[in-house]
Amino acid sequence: MAGGLQFTLIAEDGAARAGRLTTPHGRVDTPAFMPVGTQAAVKAMAPQELWDIGYRLVLSNAYHLALRPGPGLIASLGGIGPFMGWDGAVLTDSGGFQAMSLAAIRRIDEQGIAFRSHLDGRAMLLTPESSIRIQEELGVDIMMALDECLGYPADAARTRASLELTTRWAQRSLRARGEQGPALFGIVQGGFFPALRRQSAREITAMPFDGYAVGGLSVGEPKELMLEMAAIGVEQLPKAQPRYLMGVGTPADLMAAIAMGYDMFDCVLPTRNARNGCAFTSAGRLTIKNQRFATDARPLDENCGCRTCRSYSRAYLRHLFRAGEILAARALTEHNLYFYASLMRRAQAAIASGTYAQLARALCASPMACIEEMEETN
Amino acid sequence: MAGGLQFTLIAEDGAARAGRLTTPHGRVDTPAFMPVGTQAAVKAMAPQELWDIGYRLVLSNAYHLALRPGPGLIASLGGIGPFMGWDGAVLTDSGGFQAMSLAAIRRIDEQGIAFRSHLDGRAMLLTPESSIRIQEELGVDIMMALDECLGYPADAARTRASLELTTRWAQRSLRARGEQGPALFGIVQGGFFPALRRQSAREITAMPFDGYAVGGLSVGEPKELMLEMAAIGVEQLPKAQPRYLMGVGTPADLMAAIAMGYDMFDCVLPTRNARNGCAFTSAGRLTIKNQRFATDARPLDENCGCRTCRSYSRAYLRHLFRAGEILAARALTEHNLYFYASLMRRAQAAIASGTYAQLARALCASPMACIEEMEETN
Repeated sequence: MAGGLQFTLIAEDGAARAGRLTTPHGRVDTPAFMPVGTQAAVKAMAPQELWDIGYRLVLSNAYHLALRPGPGLIASLGGIGPFMGWDGAVLTDSGGFQAMSLAAIRRIDEQGIAFRSHLDGRAMLLTPESSIRIQEELGVDIMMALDECLGYPADAARTRASLELTTRWAQRSLRARGEQGPALFGIVQGGFFPALRRQSAREITAMPFDGYAVGGLSVGEPKELMLEMAAIGVEQLPKAQPRYLMGVGTPADLMAAIAMGYDMFDCVLPTRNARNGCAFTSAGRLTIKNQRFATDARPLDENCGCRTCRSYSRAYLRHLFRAGEILAARALTEHNLYFYASLMRRAQAAIASGTYAQLARALCASPMACIEEMEETN
Repeated sequence: MAGGLQFTLIAEDGAARAGRLTTPHGRVDTPAFMPVGTQAAVKAMAPQELWDIGYRLVLSNAYHLALRPGPGLIASLGGIGPFMGWDGAVLTDSGGFQAMSLAAIRRIDEQGIAFRSHLDGRAMLLTPESSIRIQEELGVDIMMALDECLGYPADAARTRASLELTTRWAQRSLRARGEQGPALFGIVQGGFFPALRRQSAREITAMPFDGYAVGGLSVGEPKELMLEMAAIGVEQLPKAQPRYLMGVGTPADLMAAIAMGYDMFDCVLPTRNARNGCAFTSAGRLTIKNQRFATDARPLDENCGCRTCRSYSRAYLRHLFRAGEILAARALTEHNLYFYASLMRRAQAAIASGTYAQLARALCASPMACIEEMEETN
């Protein structure tokens, strides 16, 4: 593969795969969850803490960093890793997702996405070529091709036009990459129509990307539809390359997607939920502000070895959260990211020993599976 | 002394003293700065980080903790140290300062201070007796007697009436302390009148407190007046006991107060300034949002060994601050507290070697002394 990226499959267990991604900034075991560091920082965390938990690859965002502080500035300071004080690898999303989430301030045409900056209203044109240029300048390990990410619902005609635009942008992205540029992943779109998902997968996988992502999911659709599309999306992805399911998801979602054969994930859930006072635990989701934790001397998760669970009681964390203390966000974020990292480690080990189906069944029969329902009622 | 507190003078250098405070929760070298943890957390910091920097004594607040989460809850979880996950010692202010800072919601009479909770409007009566009861229940190492802290200015008649009330409250505080209760410090008031400061010091030091504090300063008066009153305040304090200058101050203030013979300090400056983007450095005060740091690859302070200065450039910290990232508050707070801790260590060493006057002169001739002026223009 180009860009100094190598992917080695270590074990397969049904469709599930354990592998190793070798990047210019070190090795990443897969299945891998990537903490989200949109603005060159994973919210509330220090880079060393991510490293200590076991993360070796974080996600950042080309659109956000292009606006502030700017790729030139980051390049002048040695690239995004040195800029952040992060010794591991970095993958950047291209900005396509922001074209959806910041829809009020953009216009999309063949050329690219014309934004008004969400910071100061300044005009910004993101094209496949400029997105590659930005990501190369940032010095990331893995770039994502610019795509159009539709919301839910969108009709078939609109979806087909969009995926075909994404295909043309993918071709332009590949052409725009410099010979020495970082690895580049293509993104499969196709909305919520199986035939269109397959069309997009055919078109994108026909191009020589270093890895393939399935995008456009977790955009407001029902959970079952997300899982159905994720399953269709993975069918045609080549086995030899890393497969990345973008923006997904809960622990149970990740277990399901690993079973389908995905290798990489990102999601704001563990970090954003933490700042809202919600912890993922082996006993289900825990809302720390709940009165029933007021005098609870137990850790967030009695089965967890993270620093938060070794240091603080639920009662103290509840107090910190109610008092608006920054330490509440820190402690819950660290716990949730540890929970996600542990899940990936357990999945890797189970795949290696050919017991992934048992692990997934056990976890989905455990109170952890309550996470889904508890989340929806929160 | 009572309450398991011992104070040992190790060295004197002019009026400056180096000593050792032995508390039920370990040893504290003096001169000592206490980070402010009003709500049982030093804002943005984890307890282990405070410990790693070298802090062994933090300050918290009886009024705030009485309202939330309540002393009974903290007692049921083992006291404030175990509640916070803090292995060091804790001193609590009594709530007298809040009677000034939250003036709109309180009424003071002979009995005590009637607050309306700043959280929910609930009525709360803080008396010398209830303040002691709360602090005993919290399980602190050092309690402060309830005092009335006047603002600036206040006339002589009002100031005399107030200091005499503080004296009567001090007597009641001593009587209220249980036989096995923690150490208790009395507080000298007297506003900005030398004669009244001396009257208060006579009255308070006539009582068998375990240490003596000078309060009512840093309440809006000119710097020179603060230093003049601090100098008068220390004159009559017994040599054998710890002397605590409350609510002070900048690095230069601390150097001056140590020269006067004070042993203990607390102030929100290092932590609050950090959250506002201001760092104390050996080259003066640094406002991180300043455009001139946009591409500055240097650490906050080129002479600093703290984790922030070993990990992050000014350019990255400026980016974090502008982006509103929690890591900005964390990193600057850790740096500022390291700076204050280093200052105390240097003062201790200089006193031990009889060179404190030279150290103070050198520091005040250094760019660090710019802190004053830069602060005022910010």
